[in-house]
Amino acid sequence: MKKNAFYAQSGGVTAVINASACGVIETARKHKNRIGRVYAGRNGIIGALTEDMVDTSRESARAIASLRYTPGGAFGSARYKLKGLEENRAEYERLIEVFRAHDIGYFFYNGGGDSMDTAHKVSQLGRQLGYPITCVGVPKTVDNDLPVTDNCPGFGSVAKYVAVSTLEASLDVASMAKTSTKVFILEVMGRHAGWIAAAAGLAGATRRDAPHIILFPEVVFHEAAFLARVAACVEQNEYCVVVVSEGARRPDSRFLAEADTRDAFGHAQLGGAAQVVAEMVKANLGLKYHYAIADYLQRSARHIASKVDVAQAYAVGKAAVELALAGKNAVMPTVVRTSDRPYRWTIGSTPLARVANREKMMPRRFISRDGFAITSACRRYLEPLIRGEDYPPYRNGLPAYGALKNAPVPPRLKKPFVIG
Amino acid sequence: MKKNAFYAQSGGVTAVINASACGVIETARKHKNRIGRVYAGRNGIIGALTEDMVDTSRESARAIASLRYTPGGAFGSARYKLKGLEENRAEYERLIEVFRAHDIGYFFYNGGGDSMDTAHKVSQLGRQLGYPITCVGVPKTVDNDLPVTDNCPGFGSVAKYVAVSTLEASLDVASMAKTSTKVFILEVMGRHAGWIAAAAGLAGATRRDAPHIILFPEVVFHEAAFLARVAACVEQNEYCVVVVSEGARRPDSRFLAEADTRDAFGHAQLGGAAQVVAEMVKANLGLKYHYAIADYLQRSARHIASKVDVAQAYAVGKAAVELALAGKNAVMPTVVRTSDRPYRWTIGSTPLARVANREKMMPRRFISRDGFAITSACRRYLEPLIRGEDYPPYRNGLPAYGALKNAPVPPRLKKPFVIG
Repeated sequence: MKKNAFYAQSGGVTAVINASACGVIETARKHKNRIGRVYAGRNGIIGALTEDMVDTSRESARAIASLRYTPGGAFGSARYKLKGLEENRAEYERLIEVFRAHDIGYFFYNGGGDSMDTAHKVSQLGRQLGYPITCVGVPKTVDNDLPVTDNCPGFGSVAKYVAVSTLEASLDVASMAKTSTKVFILEVMGRHAGWIAAAAGLAGATRRDAPHIILFPEVVFHEAAFLARVAACVEQNEYCVVVVSEGARRPDSRFLAEADTRDAFGHAQLGGAAQVVAEMVKANLGLKYHYAIADYLQRSARHIASKVDVAQAYAVGKAAVELALAGKNAVMPTVVRTSDRPYRWTIGSTPLARVANREKMMPRRFISRDGFAITSACRRYLEPLIRGEDYPPYRNGLPAYGALKNAPVPPRLKKPFVIG
Repeated sequence: MKKNAFYAQSGGVTAVINASACGVIETARKHKNRIGRVYAGRNGIIGALTEDMVDTSRESARAIASLRYTPGGAFGSARYKLKGLEENRAEYERLIEVFRAHDIGYFFYNGGGDSMDTAHKVSQLGRQLGYPITCVGVPKTVDNDLPVTDNCPGFGSVAKYVAVSTLEASLDVASMAKTSTKVFILEVMGRHAGWIAAAAGLAGATRRDAPHIILFPEVVFHEAAFLARVAACVEQNEYCVVVVSEGARRPDSRFLAEADTRDAFGHAQLGGAAQVVAEMVKANLGLKYHYAIADYLQRSARHIASKVDVAQAYAVGKAAVELALAGKNAVMPTVVRTSDRPYRWTIGSTPLARVANREKMMPRRFISRDGFAITSACRRYLEPLIRGEDYPPYRNGLPAYGALKNAPVPPRLKKPFVIG
């Protein structure tokens, strides 16, 4: 029984989500007796709903191989969460309709917690509607907040980027502190969990090294304690490096970035967490600051991807196909750590029901008692995830990232589907 | 006649200023019959004024070699401009006094236009005071604004960082544009000249590719024209990538970042150029944006340094010592481009008087007629400068940057010198 497969990317993209796509497609191509063509959704699940799909069988082996080292989402991703079955059953039914029209028997959904929930629901509904489809999630998120799996593909590379950038900027600031910037602030992603901010802690071996202060979403931000720490740090080292998560929150649980602090003219302060912290430092301590906001640079920085992360991203894509072919339904491959030192990992799997809509926060034992640093337990967990470099090929000084033809699959349904 | 040498770093550091230090020190070590020890100023020229110097002869060959791949300023740099001879003759006299006390016959000053001016004045005053000292400038600046030399060591690496980051972030934004961010803005350095912003243009091969809009300090910013271009770009591509120089200016010549635009609540807008542009896009076009501020990350990103840049940074350090030993005084080595394709360069030299206090702006022919892009002439100039990768060694996933002992030189003068 040969069936086609559908693959889609969901949510914020990462430096290695295409490596997972590569794992899915290359592995499917090795099983042509069971899997016909792999269709990819343009702009994620929206591509399935609107019958806007790419036929990956039209791509050369070389083009598919280039996905392993190309950041972004090769087929387009989407921030689009299907509602509950009761609220919008039409969307789920449409998915099944499209799958049926294109003889799709496998659904590979590459995303985070929300996407695992969607994949889970599709598998249930398919059975109800008499169109059984094998649904396998492929884990992806820079936030590292999926449960069960030891870590998430996508995280290791952003962690490496943040650790390397913190190290480099710290050397810069240290060498200029005598006459210039005293406080440098780097804002990183992580609206709910502090995993990315924690990775900055790898840049220093001891508490005296930069980064001197990390502001986690998990730890309530107290202005006075923070400022006292900055002042002491500048007193001791002549400079202070602060890494702030965009998710850092005040005691009243508003984000730092939403704070209504006022500037010298009484105007409300806008801007991100870094700017709020910077103005706070200047207003209260009178210290010269600079700040950087890594934003999308951090999650697209394939040029400094973690080799472990690339390998795991590929492995979960490959495992997803293998699980599907082994008849597993409504599951997700996981990364299982079998040893810390030396670091060893293998691929396991878990039911989608166990990962859907659940967030894994940083455990309290990963954050120092004072709330400003990572612990050695955290370091032991994080360090292997940024190991190894996996450089893309270069041409004329720039990474020679791949580009697909993205040939469309001819639509078969007459009825268009309106999103929303 | 054996004399010691003094080396100092000045102004903002770069990813490769230590490669120049490496070139100076390794070359000096090859001429031990003429150059005794190389002393380095702690915190740049301040170290000479306050007799706070590091004895680099105490460092192993391996430690000195590690400078080639270590960002920041290994001995500390300083934003400290000596005043004119008439205004503060005491500082210049103090320098000569320190040089005399430590038998220093060579002065290597690694910096930009201001520093070349200082080196020039020191050479003049030494002669007047009967203590002739050979002064050679070593060019360094991420801004690429020194005249005479084809380009400045430090620029090629920041250019590569900016081009790579723009390319990567653009792939990210492109893949999410359907349902998420439509306009992405990257703010880069360059308060006076747009060289760094121009480098972002290397990320795209044609005008349709990202970056779609570059805002240069050399081109007056007109809000209406800019917004029209953003709207057209989003209409055409579904997204728009903007690179803004921190030096972009309004028609009244104020920096964009100083603009008194007001938010929805009538509050004055603070923040950098990226934020100002972002709020403008949102307020007028209602498009979702994200922005990144590279700040120090861009000039310290040794992990993605240009191989050409590293080689040239080393070469100007080496040439500085060779020029000094050849009896040249008050000169600076330059990079001379002898061919575009294939790119070939060699080291020349120029009198310090010709580079002191002069800024090289982007020529108008390097900017497209509409002011939003680079021309093919600009591309031809820039492209060779980002060529090649020169990766540092890694340990446990992080660059294994060098660290020196920085053993102090025992002071010989009784009189302390107060900076001011």
